Amino acid sequence: MAFLKVVPLEEALDVINSFRLEPKVETVPLEEALGRVLAEDIVSPIDVPPFNRATVDGYALRAEDTFMASESEPVKLRVIGEVHAGEEPRMKIEKGLAAYISTGAPLPEGADAVVQFEDVDRVGDEVLIYKPAYPGLGVMKAGVDIPKGKLLLKKGTKLGFKETALLSAVGMAEVPVFRKPRVAVISTGNEITLPGEELRPGKIYDINGRAVTDAIRELGGEACFIGVSGDDPKVLADMILEGVASCDIVVLSGGASGGMRDLTSSTIERLGRVYVHGIAIQPGKPTIIGEIDGKPIFGLPGYPTSCLTNFTLLVAPLLRKLVGRESEVRKVKKRLAHKIFSVKGRRQFLPVRIEGDKAIPILKGSGAVTSFVDADGFIEVPENVEILEAGEEVEVTFFG
Amino acid sequence: MAFLKVVPLEEALDVINSFRLEPKVETVPLEEALGRVLAEDIVSPIDVPPFNRATVDGYALRAEDTFMASESEPVKLRVIGEVHAGEEPRMKIEKGLAAYISTGAPLPEGADAVVQFEDVDRVGDEVLIYKPAYPGLGVMKAGVDIPKGKLLLKKGTKLGFKETALLSAVGMAEVPVFRKPRVAVISTGNEITLPGEELRPGKIYDINGRAVTDAIRELGGEACFIGVSGDDPKVLADMILEGVASCDIVVLSGGASGGMRDLTSSTIERLGRVYVHGIAIQPGKPTIIGEIDGKPIFGLPGYPTSCLTNFTLLVAPLLRKLVGRESEVRKVKKRLAHKIFSVKGRRQFLPVRIEGDKAIPILKGSGAVTSFVDADGFIEVPENVEILEAGEEVEVTFFG
Repeated sequence: MAFLKVVPLEEALDVINSFRLEPKVETVPLEEALGRVLAEDIVSPIDVPPFNRATVDGYALRAEDTFMASESEPVKLRVIGEVHAGEEPRMKIEKGLAAYISTGAPLPEGADAVVQFEDVDRVGDEVLIYKPAYPGLGVMKAGVDIPKGKLLLKKGTKLGFKETALLSAVGMAEVPVFRKPRVAVISTGNEITLPGEELRPGKIYDINGRAVTDAIRELGGEACFIGVSGDDPKVLADMILEGVASCDIVVLSGGASGGMRDLTSSTIERLGRVYVHGIAIQPGKPTIIGEIDGKPIFGLPGYPTSCLTNFTLLVAPLLRKLVGRESEVRKVKKRLAHKIFSVKGRRQFLPVRIEGDKAIPILKGSGAVTSFVDADGFIEVPENVEILEAGEEVEVTFFG
Repeated sequence: MAFLKVVPLEEALDVINSFRLEPKVETVPLEEALGRVLAEDIVSPIDVPPFNRATVDGYALRAEDTFMASESEPVKLRVIGEVHAGEEPRMKIEKGLAAYISTGAPLPEGADAVVQFEDVDRVGDEVLIYKPAYPGLGVMKAGVDIPKGKLLLKKGTKLGFKETALLSAVGMAEVPVFRKPRVAVISTGNEITLPGEELRPGKIYDINGRAVTDAIRELGGEACFIGVSGDDPKVLADMILEGVASCDIVVLSGGASGGMRDLTSSTIERLGRVYVHGIAIQPGKPTIIGEIDGKPIFGLPGYPTSCLTNFTLLVAPLLRKLVGRESEVRKVKKRLAHKIFSVKGRRQFLPVRIEGDKAIPILKGSGAVTSFVDADGFIEVPENVEILEAGEEVEVTFFG
């Protein structure tokens, strides 16, 4: 049996940091990259636009040919062809020549300006230019939007539609992203029943399994719900081993009773090691941290708010590290809406709801499902604090 | 050929509102409900907890049996059995009796309080109680957390992990959500090449196809990218018809050239109807709104920022209506970072970036890819305004 070690939160986090789990990289097609996190800096492999591009419909010409043009004495240029968007120009614009060009088409060799068709007159194969054009008029130069070699997006960027469009613009068909860590989720407790099953006397429906599974997904992980284990040691061990075999991390949420917690702890101990059994915070006493075959195992408390608080404190930072979102800000400063009392010598995490600049404590007791649904996150009340006054600044950590 | 009608933005929105598209409802398993939007109010079908539940490990008893208890004269009760979490109690607690009970277990008949085991002494089959218990001590009453019939979640709620956990808590295995509208996306333009293909002279990589496809997905729609059409009328018509056949809405983004736009418009006209060809805003002149077989068709401008601005103004509100997220706030008030000039008589939408409480105009020209990547959204400059001063309050509409 493990030494049942109640440790400070910092020591528990040290244990988690010592797990040899590193972010892994995979390549996904651009079409599937939305919502993923870049695992590398992305440097543009090409110039955008890749060529000098007409920004208007008109005539491509040499600007210097038009310097003498005026309303009364238009310059006449001979039109030697047309270039349309998507085409490669076949002509060369020499002195006195021009070509019709459509928006988006590449400038022909020799041309350095485009005069839009509304400003000229076309007479047979000649075009009449009434005012001087400057080099670059009506032209977007190659690479002016995105020069080849430019750092486009940094490692750690979460890809929204603007970012995937940018990657498309530079022709990236495949994108290096952080692999989604696979997390096995197991609910424990003889009383737990899954939705869809009949609720027999003495049973309640699963809450933590669903909350943890979907919180992992929102964090960018791949959650695999294994099932519900009662107090049969063989069933519990089999589920844990299934999680260890198929996933990178295993998260169990505890049944309500102390017996179930002890069984969870002893089963992990038998299959691997238990490093932490209890954290010196409230809630957190029943939390277990262990390892089987190099895979971290977490045993979270059974009460939903306690489960989610400990998930947020312990599991979420590990997942965020693995998906490359470590720097994501999940805290906000607010003012406490009303006075609260705490017990001296106890480090407490209290659920709060945010309304405007206020943090409103939710004091329904950790057994209430609705207390975590109503809460946006929690605040910490340090050990040496007994009273937090209304209006005091508090830091709210969002759940998840 | 259609009457090429340039209409005010409001008239274009009226056309869109007149399309007979209504939100549709489907039922999904709870495991797949994360991120979806509720299509109905959800009322709890059960009490949570479903029974009077012990909140501590201890002894279930009748409180009135303990009213005379004291340190010096403890009350002795006979322990007639045990109830564990998940079990149905088989005993009845009559005067002078008690039962061992574990946290989460249902109270046996007759019991109305649970005294925790740390506060009592167990001697053989008797338990000694040293202080009075009140009815309800150590008990969470049936339905106190969520009473049966309570409105849990409102229609239109986007389901995060807290909401799916709440649905699990009341045993909902299936959830009514708004069906994802299917949107076909087509890029047009002879110059457009898809990432992964060789970039031949005169070609550029697709930007709008990716941006629109992924913006639709972020909005909760199901996007189906059909492909890139050049100026072959048959290919374009086939792609549009494929979109009409398989989807609820078709969105085309225009090629850079006017010729491509005209072809798009005439093709829609041939297959159905064009209601709007041009909106009296900048950007928006080349925007097309039509209908084929009762399905709305949008032709968006080719320049990425213009495309995304018109997508945000026209397509996104329709999608938000269909996915039940109509009320979502996508605007924020900021202060203009520096003075900008506009043309009188022109209703302009300018891309801006947000930094703190400032809106910073991005003035790279609508041809620049990076201008929409750098921008968070846009502000409107009304027709009759020529100058917006630094520090003026502006309303920023987020892209998407």
